[in-house]
Amino acid sequence: MKIVCDRDKLLDGIMTSQKAVSGKSTLPILGGLLLDCRTGDLRIMSTDLDIGIECTVEAEVVEKGWVVLDSRLLGEIIRKLSFNDVEIIIDETNVASIKCGNSHFTIQGQGGEEFPQLPEVRSEKKISLPQDLLKSIVRQTVFACAVDETRPILTGVLMECKGEEISMAALDGFRLALRTIKVSEQLPDISVVVPSKTLNEIYKILKDHEQEVEIFFTDNQMLFRIGSTKVVSRLLEGEFINYSQIIPDEYTTRVKVKTLDFLESCERASLLAREGKNNLIRLEICEDVVKITSNAEIGMVNEEVNVVMEGKELKIAFNSKYLTDALKVIESEHIEMQLTTNINPCVLKPVQSENYTYLLLPVRVAE
Amino acid sequence: MKIVCDRDKLLDGIMTSQKAVSGKSTLPILGGLLLDCRTGDLRIMSTDLDIGIECTVEAEVVEKGWVVLDSRLLGEIIRKLSFNDVEIIIDETNVASIKCGNSHFTIQGQGGEEFPQLPEVRSEKKISLPQDLLKSIVRQTVFACAVDETRPILTGVLMECKGEEISMAALDGFRLALRTIKVSEQLPDISVVVPSKTLNEIYKILKDHEQEVEIFFTDNQMLFRIGSTKVVSRLLEGEFINYSQIIPDEYTTRVKVKTLDFLESCERASLLAREGKNNLIRLEICEDVVKITSNAEIGMVNEEVNVVMEGKELKIAFNSKYLTDALKVIESEHIEMQLTTNINPCVLKPVQSENYTYLLLPVRVAE
Repeated sequence: MKIVCDRDKLLDGIMTSQKAVSGKSTLPILGGLLLDCRTGDLRIMSTDLDIGIECTVEAEVVEKGWVVLDSRLLGEIIRKLSFNDVEIIIDETNVASIKCGNSHFTIQGQGGEEFPQLPEVRSEKKISLPQDLLKSIVRQTVFACAVDETRPILTGVLMECKGEEISMAALDGFRLALRTIKVSEQLPDISVVVPSKTLNEIYKILKDHEQEVEIFFTDNQMLFRIGSTKVVSRLLEGEFINYSQIIPDEYTTRVKVKTLDFLESCERASLLAREGKNNLIRLEICEDVVKITSNAEIGMVNEEVNVVMEGKELKIAFNSKYLTDALKVIESEHIEMQLTTNINPCVLKPVQSENYTYLLLPVRVAE
Repeated sequence: MKIVCDRDKLLDGIMTSQKAVSGKSTLPILGGLLLDCRTGDLRIMSTDLDIGIECTVEAEVVEKGWVVLDSRLLGEIIRKLSFNDVEIIIDETNVASIKCGNSHFTIQGQGGEEFPQLPEVRSEKKISLPQDLLKSIVRQTVFACAVDETRPILTGVLMECKGEEISMAALDGFRLALRTIKVSEQLPDISVVVPSKTLNEIYKILKDHEQEVEIFFTDNQMLFRIGSTKVVSRLLEGEFINYSQIIPDEYTTRVKVKTLDFLESCERASLLAREGKNNLIRLEICEDVVKITSNAEIGMVNEEVNVVMEGKELKIAFNSKYLTDALKVIESEHIEMQLTTNINPCVLKPVQSENYTYLLLPVRVAE
């Protein structure tokens, strides 16, 4: 194998592919990147057996071939090169010769055939979304996935397509984040649970522009095609919770508040909530104002935020993290809270939009 | 005590003072900041008993007093405030009431009298230096201090003033970094060993401008006055090594090389040196070129850097870190290496300047 390519493009491809390299795999070859030039272009691949990433990099392929090279070392070498033209030659014993300017590295690699193949995802089931939109959807949902593995299905995000609507939902037993998007085309019927780890990696690859991502689905795999990068992921198996029945559609108290003011006050209250055991903040919802308090051994905090309230006054307590998590990702200037009693779930929504719903369980506290 | 001050200025003072707060002190009060308004201005103080930092912050002192507040919590609270005017009131039980906009924190503090006093450093022995110059001197020397404590005196930098010259020297048994400055005034005779920790903190406080730092010396303390900040530090006790006798003044090989090219090649060679056990890079000094090589189990690297050499050709090996450490801080475009044999110390200097000398012991290796 012999290729010549541009340092910056090569580094870009390596850094993107590296995201799937697991540091602590028991299979040493998974600490490597597969450089595959068998078909005339350079594809850089990595996998941890759950996720696989493949980047196609512009390169002049002088001689076809493939090799696996240590991911960390290769990345560091390419990053440190001072010139643009990089030549990589692999001999029959999988030794890589990397030349650039007056630098010459010789690195022992492994045969490409030893690297696990990425699964082929061929499917007619396909949707397309602008990158920035998918990025925003992932950001608004994935944080609500369960972290602990006692119910593995909840460590993923349920992605459903039906008619002209896409929805993504995540829940962990304490809160639910649901984002929906209307599109102007008929979508295939899809219902899959995507591991949160996959979405976190996808989030880092997505750019803030409108170029489309294509997503393909099979029964147990999905494929994201983002520009010259392909990400293949397994899906989680099992039945997701039927969340639609837990979202209340009635309420007796409605509060409209400026998102940023509310977030900042909750974050300040969190400083003391964190000192306590349970991260607890208390809200006293009055006609024009929400009073937020929190106390710990070392002291206490009182915050007041101006609101517009309709309905009953109410005292309610929340885990401050679960509240601020949502306030950070809601993109509208004002939000609306819908409440019934201090033991019923509270719903947060952007004002003047139905595309995001966050449901949050209160914490029961003694008066 | 009652004060009103500006959030940004207060935060600035807190962040600077916090640098001396030790996270792991056995004395809980050292996790606090002393806010001292007994004399009509606000001074924020911290100490870990080795270093003490005092910042004077512009504030309207309505009522005099003092208090100790948890450093981390106070910093986080002030950072999160959304408005400028902060009011702090301390009652007779040392409870602090911090008000800003619609936020009101109540934090239990401790009495100011419980905080250890910073030592008074009153001395006629004083020098002044521009901040940016002192910053550069610290950067060029402090990295060469010993890290391990087997010879405590070597964990500090020897600072000497004599006639019209200031010198700072650090050494750890493998290398020596020496920086000298000529000034245009007669200096007091000074010879002290400053803990590297103090200089590292000073480095973070110093700004990149020419405003002067005043440094005062007593027998066992020194005081840096940097704008509205005072830093007091104990000095290390003991005899420093007489380094002047270990700097060779003769050589048989002299190499002139572009600093950045040499640094980048050494850094690339380090990538493989690091994989081996001893961080070793080998230099083969020829007439027009220095060849740099390093090898590890996984592979090897060859680098070539153009040089101008006078004298004998030479093969020599170094710990790559000790070489790159110096190349990173030498500020001239070209450096000069002076060598004799592959077991004699090597001297690095900026070309066309005598103000910096770095001495480096080679590593003996089998041919």
